[in-house]
Amino acid sequence: MIRIGVIGQSGAITPEMQKMAEEIGREIAQKGAILLTGGRSGVMEAVSRGAKMANGLVVGILPGDTLDKANEYIDIPITTGLSSDYRSLILVHSSDALIMIGGGNGTLGELSASYLNRKPVVIIEPSGGWAGRVRTIAYEGTYLDERKHVKLDYAHTPKEALDILMNRFNHNEMEPGDV
Amino acid sequence: MIRIGVIGQSGAITPEMQKMAEEIGREIAQKGAILLTGGRSGVMEAVSRGAKMANGLVVGILPGDTLDKANEYIDIPITTGLSSDYRSLILVHSSDALIMIGGGNGTLGELSASYLNRKPVVIIEPSGGWAGRVRTIAYEGTYLDERKHVKLDYAHTPKEALDILMNRFNHNEMEPGDV
Amino acid sequence: MIRIGVIGQSGAITPEMQKMAEEIGREIAQKGAILLTGGRSGVMEAVSRGAKMANGLVVGILPGDTLDKANEYIDIPITTGLSSDYRSLILVHSSDALIMIGGGNGTLGELSASYLNRKPVVIIEPSGGWAGRVRTIAYEGTYLDERKHVKLDYAHTPKEALDILMNRFNHNEMEPGDV
Amino acid sequence: MIRIGVIGQSGAITPEMQKMAEEIGREIAQKGAILLTGGRSGVMEAVSRGAKMANGLVVGILPGDTLDKANEYIDIPITTGLSSDYRSLILVHSSDALIMIGGGNGTLGELSASYLNRKPVVIIEPSGGWAGRVRTIAYEGTYLDERKHVKLDYAHTPKEALDILMNRFNHNEMEPGDV
Repeated sequence: MIRIGVIGQSGAITPEMQKMAEEIGREIAQKGAILLTGGRSGVMEAVSRGAKMANGLVVGILPGDTLDKANEYIDIPITTGLSSDYRSLILVHSSDALIMIGGGNGTLGELSASYLNRKPVVIIEPSGGWAGRVRTIAYEGTYLDERKHVKLDYAHTPKEALDILMNRFNHNEMEPGDV
Repeated sequence: MIRIGVIGQSGAITPEMQKMAEEIGREIAQKGAILLTGGRSGVMEAVSRGAKMANGLVVGILPGDTLDKANEYIDIPITTGLSSDYRSLILVHSSDALIMIGGGNGTLGELSASYLNRKPVVIIEPSGGWAGRVRTIAYEGTYLDERKHVKLDYAHTPKEALDILMNRFNHNEMEPGDV
Repeated sequence: MIRIGVIGQSGAITPEMQKMAEEIGREIAQKGAILLTGGRSGVMEAVSRGAKMANGLVVGILPGDTLDKANEYIDIPITTGLSSDYRSLILVHSSDALIMIGGGNGTLGELSASYLNRKPVVIIEPSGGWAGRVRTIAYEGTYLDERKHVKLDYAHTPKEALDILMNRFNHNEMEPGDV
Repeated sequence: MIRIGVIGQSGAITPEMQKMAEEIGREIAQKGAILLTGGRSGVMEAVSRGAKMANGLVVGILPGDTLDKANEYIDIPITTGLSSDYRSLILVHSSDALIMIGGGNGTLGELSASYLNRKPVVIIEPSGGWAGRVRTIAYEGTYLDERKHVKLDYAHTPKEALDILMNRFNHNEMEPGDV
């Protein structure tokens, strides 16, 4: 089973972003993939709700040791005992590929960690935040530095994002657990 | 859902230890709990096989980034990108309670980390290795130092181990995600 | 003693960047501050050489367990046993403030982690790489997201960078070990 | 320079243990080695005081982000932002060899991690706590499991402990940074 991490901002999000995140969650579940998130509020919560609506499996890679701030849609809480920056690295290392929706500085750090670890990332460009700003800052619009480790992909809709990812897996470009 | 971590040695194990570990896995699945292990061979593999036989859910908290050395019974691989000592702490933090079967030095470290994090541990005493040696070295046979953070429990059979654990949860002594 | 982390690219660097990094190292040492870096090549090596020329104290927060790829100017090697992304977080957490010179994606991740942990960062803007690109991508040219946790500072010369940092410390805006 | 980690209990310690720890710190400094500790109270504080009396260099590998609970004898505080169990692993990985004085469960975990990472450990046996109990529990009195990775050494006095360690280094059995 493919593990797809979804990264995006916590806290209050717009109804549009909620809808988009839920749809991503549903698509992931319908493809038979596992959803991983940071387990908190905002995008993490909406995408998890979407996955549960479609009977998906949801893993939350949480900071700290308790479920106090975890959202209610997590099947498997991984309470890392770590602060949110360290736990973000566990999330990235444990995902075969990632989808980025909106996002503040924490999400930017996760994007950078994904690139460092050569994980494919599809960015939902119209979702705002850093997702809407990456293309203008990336080298040639698609790399995070001159080493050109791994190409960033962009999508306009949840469905398109999943198609891009599944395509990469189906063409044997990558296998779950590959680095 | 309660998350039960099982710790014990990797590598070749005796048929008796295999049988015991499989039975633990089955019992955990039948109680509706999630099984977490370090995801490798030996006790980790046998307990995971047992859980899958009973349609349980199995999480493997793996060192490194690949599934090369993961056993085949894992539903959710968490590839931490960490060496085995750091990843053992993720396993302990993410478990509500633990069961110890046999065990070499790595398992001793996980027992110590469980005690430090006040996680209940049931030790299957006849399983050998450190599990068979803890009682003689523990303070009053049941603590790992004079602070007496949390009592170690001992069981002779897999069933007894699960009964002890479920009893602690049912008596509200603890809740999933508590510290 | 104040601990100043310097972040920037590894590998081959231009003579201009070397000179700039060396000067930063010397300035840090002359101010009586401790220099922390990731302990490898490129900017990390040049800044460490500069600090040693001025009899400074140099800490290298290294990935892995060995000194194989450590530069020769480190007084205190911290061999974290971690991959480079996790070790970058140790570097950020252990610095009271940071200076950024050039930088590829790894440095971008360290900048993001610094902001997340509310560490002041002075960016040597003419040094190229991400250091030369941050201002255009930052919110209002000076924040990494809308939460506006901590203002990024920019400098044109090593001396100016140190003046800005020491000024922040002297005005009691922060103390070593503060978060 | 050789990096020697000293592990032992935090909190109130007896005058005898204080004297012993201070002497260890002095010996380490006089041998020109760097002292690393967990940076808190008890043995960590006493050994650091001893090292500073002899003008040694003291590194404190601290949990958390602040110096609130750090002892006053640290030259280089590494504020890891991690809980005490994770930070203990940074301490072990960053030490070329370790000395164990007294110790509760946390120290037992550090001993286990040292053995896992094949770091030589000299145990000051008369210092009580786990240091006084290891020999009876170890396999053949000197290994922490049947794999026999690395022999534990025992000493009765600080001087003897240092002699054993320096001897191992001088006979090229190990080099700083080796694993």
